[in-house]
Amino acid sequence: MSRRNLLNLIGTAAGGAAMYQAMTSLGHAAESTYTGPIKLDGDPKGASVLILGAGLAGLVAALELRKAGYKVQVLEYHERAGGRNWTLRGGDKFTELGGIEQKCEFERGNYINPGPWRIPYNHHAILDYCKRLGVAMEPFVQVNYNAYMHNKDAFGGKPQRFRHIYSDFQGGVTELLSKAVNQDKLEEAVTKEDKEVLLAALRQWGALDANYKYAKNGLTSDRRGYDRDPGGGLSGEPVNSEPFSFKDVVKSRLWNRMQTGGVYEFQSAIFQPVGGMDMIAKAFQREVGRLIKFNAKVTTIKQDNRGVTVTYVDAKKGGRPQTATADYCLCTIPLSVLSQIDINVGSAMKAAIDAPPYAASIKIGLQFKRRFWEEDEQIYGGISYTNLPIAMIQYPSSNFFRTGKGVLLAAYTFGANAYEWTALPPAERLKKAVEFGAQIHPQQYQKEFENGISVGWHREPATLGCYAVWTDAARKQHYNNLCAMDGRIMLAGEHASYLPAWQEGSVLSALDAISRLHKRVVAR
Amino acid sequence: MSRRNLLNLIGTAAGGAAMYQAMTSLGHAAESTYTGPIKLDGDPKGASVLILGAGLAGLVAALELRKAGYKVQVLEYHERAGGRNWTLRGGDKFTELGGIEQKCEFERGNYINPGPWRIPYNHHAILDYCKRLGVAMEPFVQVNYNAYMHNKDAFGGKPQRFRHIYSDFQGGVTELLSKAVNQDKLEEAVTKEDKEVLLAALRQWGALDANYKYAKNGLTSDRRGYDRDPGGGLSGEPVNSEPFSFKDVVKSRLWNRMQTGGVYEFQSAIFQPVGGMDMIAKAFQREVGRLIKFNAKVTTIKQDNRGVTVTYVDAKKGGRPQTATADYCLCTIPLSVLSQIDINVGSAMKAAIDAPPYAASIKIGLQFKRRFWEEDEQIYGGISYTNLPIAMIQYPSSNFFRTGKGVLLAAYTFGANAYEWTALPPAERLKKAVEFGAQIHPQQYQKEFENGISVGWHREPATLGCYAVWTDAARKQHYNNLCAMDGRIMLAGEHASYLPAWQEGSVLSALDAISRLHKRVVAR
Repeated sequence: MSRRNLLNLIGTAAGGAAMYQAMTSLGHAAESTYTGPIKLDGDPKGASVLILGAGLAGLVAALELRKAGYKVQVLEYHERAGGRNWTLRGGDKFTELGGIEQKCEFERGNYINPGPWRIPYNHHAILDYCKRLGVAMEPFVQVNYNAYMHNKDAFGGKPQRFRHIYSDFQGGVTELLSKAVNQDKLEEAVTKEDKEVLLAALRQWGALDANYKYAKNGLTSDRRGYDRDPGGGLSGEPVNSEPFSFKDVVKSRLWNRMQTGGVYEFQSAIFQPVGGMDMIAKAFQREVGRLIKFNAKVTTIKQDNRGVTVTYVDAKKGGRPQTATADYCLCTIPLSVLSQIDINVGSAMKAAIDAPPYAASIKIGLQFKRRFWEEDEQIYGGISYTNLPIAMIQYPSSNFFRTGKGVLLAAYTFGANAYEWTALPPAERLKKAVEFGAQIHPQQYQKEFENGISVGWHREPATLGCYAVWTDAARKQHYNNLCAMDGRIMLAGEHASYLPAWQEGSVLSALDAISRLHKRVVAR
Repeated sequence: MSRRNLLNLIGTAAGGAAMYQAMTSLGHAAESTYTGPIKLDGDPKGASVLILGAGLAGLVAALELRKAGYKVQVLEYHERAGGRNWTLRGGDKFTELGGIEQKCEFERGNYINPGPWRIPYNHHAILDYCKRLGVAMEPFVQVNYNAYMHNKDAFGGKPQRFRHIYSDFQGGVTELLSKAVNQDKLEEAVTKEDKEVLLAALRQWGALDANYKYAKNGLTSDRRGYDRDPGGGLSGEPVNSEPFSFKDVVKSRLWNRMQTGGVYEFQSAIFQPVGGMDMIAKAFQREVGRLIKFNAKVTTIKQDNRGVTVTYVDAKKGGRPQTATADYCLCTIPLSVLSQIDINVGSAMKAAIDAPPYAASIKIGLQFKRRFWEEDEQIYGGISYTNLPIAMIQYPSSNFFRTGKGVLLAAYTFGANAYEWTALPPAERLKKAVEFGAQIHPQQYQKEFENGISVGWHREPATLGCYAVWTDAARKQHYNNLCAMDGRIMLAGEHASYLPAWQEGSVLSALDAISRLHKRVVAR
């Protein structure tokens, strides 16, 4: 079964959200083993390394190997460094498979990150590189209690505030459990003292009243908000809000995405580079840009007992193949592309290269005439979730309270959904994204929309997918073969890590690979 | 019973945390009724207003009344505007009751806000003024999953990561309730379908496995973190972490402060002005500074049927009393101070002025040689909570990842605790704060400490307390009498609002008062 087919199967059978869940449980979520800057002691004795791909893995390897004394050369398909570390701003152009070109028309100061868009506090390696390279960071607002949770089939299709669903679910759960505890219905023998402290905890956790009820009162309004907010002077008396019934909340299935802030890499604190994710790529490019040959499309990778020879052509103009040679090759080309390149490695690595399917995904950015989400709805950053095909709307975590135009990440979805989006011409994608988004923001979405841009990663020529999807079985069979050195060739990238789709995975993969390479070189 | 005595009683009986809880349930927590900039249409016909106090209530009133055409004069005790809106930076001095002076020795770029330090998204009025006055805002990190929860009497006195307690409590609650549901032990008759969706919700919410257990596996590690974090290449395989027993978590009472991010005004998104809270005061001062007479200590407030006459002396030099007169007076002096000033208002307003006690509180800021909380512990912003007398340690929400010195809010506590702190000389307070903090950060706290400063609000001469503590009974009896116009005199400030201690309360109180004043003036 081909990669594409398997991906389709997963996407179709489970739907975007379920697929995402599956990915998460397969390791899309974790912290780094990074313990500080890499030390490559010992003389490489003039050894040369050819790095394929100037994404984060390639950039880190180039920086560190050069520093350790290697002769380094990098071949990169695009005419910019960064790979999936990429930011689209006004004036940028992007051509997808099939030759369709889009131009970004965002006003200055606005952008979307088609690839990675946030960096968890627990991703030490990438954060350390940002610090060392002087990339300024600002908090990324992941959870916003005033954003919306939307299920087209619940609450009459009306979006609900995160704080309502969150508080009311928690209240309902704790009220039910309190009742069972109070009625001694739990199997466990609990001492009177244990029971008391458990009940106190449930009351505090769920905002229950003295009778262990989650009721309409100041306690619950202080979690879910008020009908009429407290104010000042003679006009200030507040009016409490009425919780939803627990049954309605449970049936709404809106709890499905409510733990977004509880997941390890989405926990606060979480960051983004000030000005766009590619500030990281630009910082690396300042360091190692002169080592990179841009617009180089790799066609063959050959090794023998003297070295590695790579053939490439100009990615834009075509023309005669050229070659680059080195003692060793670190290849960071995505497996989706590498599996189509002629490379003479052993059957174990070749099978590993062919193993993981790549996730299809799409992001759509829309520019609006004004930041209505802040001005009208007091939503500053964070994400609204929906089971419509756009999956989510993300509000920018920067330039808060500024007047002027603004850009939303107006769709971010995976699998079958993503294929359906890219089957449409770009203008149609925008139209649809506006239509769907109008179910979350009916007052403003159609009226304030100006322009937009969409990136389907499965249609991005140098990546052909968003990231490598490892199943437990595939990882067991192939992962070590993918990472082990094959003659003079090593692989690196998010696909060669336990943190698929994360920049941290790329960085750690590169550090692991060059450590092993260096050990071999100095042992010669 | 005097205000001070009542406060002592509350503080002693209940302890700082409990007192805080009581305050919260009494209305220390709410959203604004603000619906946009105030419109004071109609001609004030040359009317004059004397505003007492250049805190936020006074500043808002001065700005809006001047704009509406009033003659405005402001008397302020300090030589700066802002009142409790205040930031201490290197070089600043502060004299508390009894004449003890402290000098702040923080390195440039570091500060503490002795008063308000965060602005919730739902405080529309203050946020709108910030926007209109061009005060830049940045996210305030309230919840940090990697910060500590500490109970000196639990887990052997060892601080625990927020994410461990949070995940494990939630896992325990959902596991227990799942069991009760699976065994049909709940009183409610639930349909099979309802039961299934409830169980699915509990699994998702609590990260339970297929058997509804909260166990050691990838699911729970993806919430609470790993023992060995996932990495890249051949060195990347993760090791899952072992949850705490639910019983230990419940008995630890660390759940007590775990809902910090679920409370209405601590919910994300939450903000702080870039550079310190007093950037707001400075912005107002740019607008209305020339209307303010600084260093003016009010001694009497008299009214008759022609106007209001206020006597004041120079707060620093003393000397001969001076007078200021106007048609009306808006008095924003804290009730703790106003109750000691000779003011001829009716008995109802006088009783209201004397009614609410003021909370004692202290904040201590400590400077350290380096930002060890970021560098060693990956804590970027947020708060560690403890039941030691410091109550909390807050990590700065700005200048992330920068090298150099850093300042922590190293104690913030109320009631009896606060009195005990201020009974010590300033140098002793710092020594104690370092000793206590070393129980949370044993490796670095003593070693890296440099200097610090402490502000006890009950010892701040112009405030004599942190904020007015309204009980339900006192509010019912006195609040409307406090806010109603008495002849030519009106009161405003956080004490005249349903948002005690919040800047939003001050602003809304001022807007409510001047709306009523203006209505009366134009109706003449």
